[in-house]
Amino acid sequence: MDFVTVGTEFVNHYYQTFDTNRAGLSNLYTADSMLTWEDEQFKGVESIMEKIGSLSFQKIQHQVFRMDFQPSIGGSILVSSTGQLLMDEDSNGIPFAQSFVLNQANGAWYVHNDIFRLNIMA
Amino acid sequence: MDFVTVGTEFVNHYYQTFDTNRAGLSNLYTADSMLTWEDEQFKGVESIMEKIGSLSFQKIQHQVFRMDFQPSIGGSILVSSTGQLLMDEDSNGIPFAQSFVLNQANGAWYVHNDIFRLNIMA
Repeated sequence: MDFVTVGTEFVNHYYQTFDTNRAGLSNLYTADSMLTWEDEQFKGVESIMEKIGSLSFQKIQHQVFRMDFQPSIGGSILVSSTGQLLMDEDSNGIPFAQSFVLNQANGAWYVHNDIFRLNIMA
Repeated sequence: MDFVTVGTEFVNHYYQTFDTNRAGLSNLYTADSMLTWEDEQFKGVESIMEKIGSLSFQKIQHQVFRMDFQPSIGGSILVSSTGQLLMDEDSNGIPFAQSFVLNQANGAWYVHNDIFRLNIMA
């Protein structure tokens, strides 16, 4: 599969899983994965899934505006997504930006890098 | 230098140069560099600088909200920035997100990947 196909399938799967079955994201991370979530940093699937599981909203919907992909170092893929988050009963979306580097290990793609930011003034 | 220092110096230099002397960005790209600018894609420093030089605003200011960094594949660095663009005489900023992978060649850092998106609904 080319990098656009891998990236597109990843982004669709990631946000669908995040919004419906957050625990299912654990398949995407390994011991080498890093997550920056706002001001916090996590390394490894256990630490990352503990953070993702602890997020306080009950209902969440990622509305993706754009997803972009480029081939990167060592056969990896840079993925950039922009969109807005709709949380719980709030109908006003908050813009977000997320960057991933996808890499292959043992023939399977995994998330090596993951940086998430709400795109709002500091 | 650690990845946070490299990334921070890069982001500060990149936007300062973009806003004051766009042609000076050419030092940051090589023949291997890729740029996605909204829906267009460019490869190599000449093609990238032609695009950046052709952007139609006269005055531009990037106001960076956040910059984040992670070490990535093969000693590269993933850089994610969010902020808003202030263009010409318009005082309303437009949110943007930009992702870079910085890599080293011949002992110098260069931009291997660059994805720029205005963070607005499609």
